Amino acid sequence: MAVGQFPFPQMVPVSGIRLGTASAGIKTAGRQDLVVLGLAQDTRVAGVFTQNAFCAAPVTVSKEHLARGDVRYLVINSGNANACTGDEGLADARLTCSKLAELAGGRAEQVLPYSTGVIGERLPMARLLAGLPQALENLSEDGWESAARGIMTTDTRPKGASVQFTYEGETITVTGIAKGSGMIKPNMATMLAYIATDAKVSQSLLDQLAVKASDQSFNRITVDGDTSTNDSCMLIATGQTSLPEINSTQGELFAKFYNAVVSVHIQLAQNIVSDGEGATKFVTVQVEGATSKPEAAKVAYSVAQSPLVKTALFASDPNWGRIVAAIGYAGVEGLDADTVKVWLGRVLIVENGGRAASYTEEQGQAVMDQEEIMIRIDLGRGQSKDRVWTTDLSHDYIKINAEYRS
Amino acid sequence: MAVGQFPFPQMVPVSGIRLGTASAGIKTAGRQDLVVLGLAQDTRVAGVFTQNAFCAAPVTVSKEHLARGDVRYLVINSGNANACTGDEGLADARLTCSKLAELAGGRAEQVLPYSTGVIGERLPMARLLAGLPQALENLSEDGWESAARGIMTTDTRPKGASVQFTYEGETITVTGIAKGSGMIKPNMATMLAYIATDAKVSQSLLDQLAVKASDQSFNRITVDGDTSTNDSCMLIATGQTSLPEINSTQGELFAKFYNAVVSVHIQLAQNIVSDGEGATKFVTVQVEGATSKPEAAKVAYSVAQSPLVKTALFASDPNWGRIVAAIGYAGVEGLDADTVKVWLGRVLIVENGGRAASYTEEQGQAVMDQEEIMIRIDLGRGQSKDRVWTTDLSHDYIKINAEYRS
Repeated sequence: MAVGQFPFPQMVPVSGIRLGTASAGIKTAGRQDLVVLGLAQDTRVAGVFTQNAFCAAPVTVSKEHLARGDVRYLVINSGNANACTGDEGLADARLTCSKLAELAGGRAEQVLPYSTGVIGERLPMARLLAGLPQALENLSEDGWESAARGIMTTDTRPKGASVQFTYEGETITVTGIAKGSGMIKPNMATMLAYIATDAKVSQSLLDQLAVKASDQSFNRITVDGDTSTNDSCMLIATGQTSLPEINSTQGELFAKFYNAVVSVHIQLAQNIVSDGEGATKFVTVQVEGATSKPEAAKVAYSVAQSPLVKTALFASDPNWGRIVAAIGYAGVEGLDADTVKVWLGRVLIVENGGRAASYTEEQGQAVMDQEEIMIRIDLGRGQSKDRVWTTDLSHDYIKINAEYRS
Repeated sequence: MAVGQFPFPQMVPVSGIRLGTASAGIKTAGRQDLVVLGLAQDTRVAGVFTQNAFCAAPVTVSKEHLARGDVRYLVINSGNANACTGDEGLADARLTCSKLAELAGGRAEQVLPYSTGVIGERLPMARLLAGLPQALENLSEDGWESAARGIMTTDTRPKGASVQFTYEGETITVTGIAKGSGMIKPNMATMLAYIATDAKVSQSLLDQLAVKASDQSFNRITVDGDTSTNDSCMLIATGQTSLPEINSTQGELFAKFYNAVVSVHIQLAQNIVSDGEGATKFVTVQVEGATSKPEAAKVAYSVAQSPLVKTALFASDPNWGRIVAAIGYAGVEGLDADTVKVWLGRVLIVENGGRAASYTEEQGQAVMDQEEIMIRIDLGRGQSKDRVWTTDLSHDYIKINAEYRS
């Protein structure tokens, strides 16, 4: 189950990026489960990886190879995470890279490996390696949708976003795919994202952008550090346009480029939330009037993560008491309940430490009956704000996670 | 639904404590929902209260009256939390105290009020006050079980514990009741506990003990600060024995007394967990080999709170990958995955960063099929340990919390 309409969008190819998909039978026979990205020479790659202490073997190898630069291939398998697989898992990830390099021409260090799926089982290496030639053969600039499908696990739909802008008559493209069907925090399903542009970007700026764009998108649907063993988000710049290199945060070109990159990240992040396991509501929790951005985020997460709030959302119950309780235990030093205001959509529901005098249950119910819900909170103690996106907690969440071996 | 067998125990009366229950029709007609505790003169009372910024009116008034000392009555209603009710709610709590004092003889400041139930609605004061005479009339040293039933909300069973010990031929009693049907963190249902002894204890030691015993019991089924608007845990000493006053943490009398008090607290806390909403498993998460107790607690909470671990427990699925992922994102600085060991019951499931060589799925399954499950984690980096208690996350949790307006 998933909430909202997210038809797979028109994906504009990115010059210098080719994608190929194959069916290697890693977990389920016949499923497309192996994806290769081929990058043109001089492409630059930046990445943000899981902070989980039990990071998976492919994460370790990807970070190692990325640090050397000169990346030419990414290889992703779904169906098996190659996580908690010890030294054998590391050897499997390395073998995947060297085999791909051998087939495609190049060095193992030019290949970044990724895996997602069940934890704690060895990769079926014979089948995986046997699938590589087909993936390479299929490499095409139009391979984005197949690739989006090939990296899915519990996802109910492929996730893509594509944005273009023009600068001095030249068109720049930012196109990306992601997988993950996460609710906020409760779900540690692996998130993978691959976002590419034909812009030319300096390595140091690309590195900064990867962190900053993730922070405003994927880190707003989960909490820093509360990550699965395999989470990875890659930002790739092929530099195939004739526009000058973007190497500082000044000027109109950077501003337009930045907006496009962040937009693709946010679309993908919202798409992941909307495909949350068992989700029936898409919820934005926006907190303003905080003394700092981290304070606003803390309150937003507290509300967004509260299972009591989430079950009330599932029931379409305008249960403002549970929202208020979650604000109250967020741990904001010296919070004065009397200055806090809460809105459901545009309906003021809480002020002066209790239910707003103007509020009626019918008004709240009308908002809760929607599929997209905004919870807005004004702490009334400062100028900072932040927001997170989440879903409700439904019967299907339990069903999916009790039955699926992730 | 609730897990395990917890027949209501034999409750030994505490000399100097009488309990009376009445049916005031606060939420549901005919239900026992009003409880009064009458305390003998010179009884000492200590308490631990919610840290929620939106604390309920009765909490504010209880703290205020407790600070004045000379407490003679406690009055508790279920069915309505009198929380987020602004100035009117405060006035209602004060009126409850003054009316009780008027009926029983005494001053309003000698009465501590408590409420639990729905948030954000005014107390039905006429009905509540009309119930007070009956509760006073019923006051009896044998009223513990009725009182345990009278404070219930979503609880499926009354919760009590009673322990005695002897010292120099004299018998000391510690008897207590509690309400709450909480899972760890996901559930913010109000917890109330009233634990009484006939020992004579100095006020300062009683204050210390209330904090320390809660920390080892109720704070091990929920996280400090992540509390509902109404949580309160009271420790009451009537001093009716002929033994000398306990006023220091030295000596055999203190040691025996301390064990009895902590034992009653832990029994009540475990009883609350076992009555967790929709619970089908009782789970102990024990972490050792940590560099500090807070570090051990952090890892234990991370595992105990993980919805993916909890749904796996519900499915009786020995999904050690989810346990490992939750250890990994607990935020332990510099955690080396290779030194971590994990046991399910007595079965070693993880070592050296992956599945233990000796482990078989059948062994894990045999443990998971039990109703009581121990997850033991050795971080392999220090000498400190801690433990928390929790439950699984089931379909019924969603059902209860989507349908009940708390």
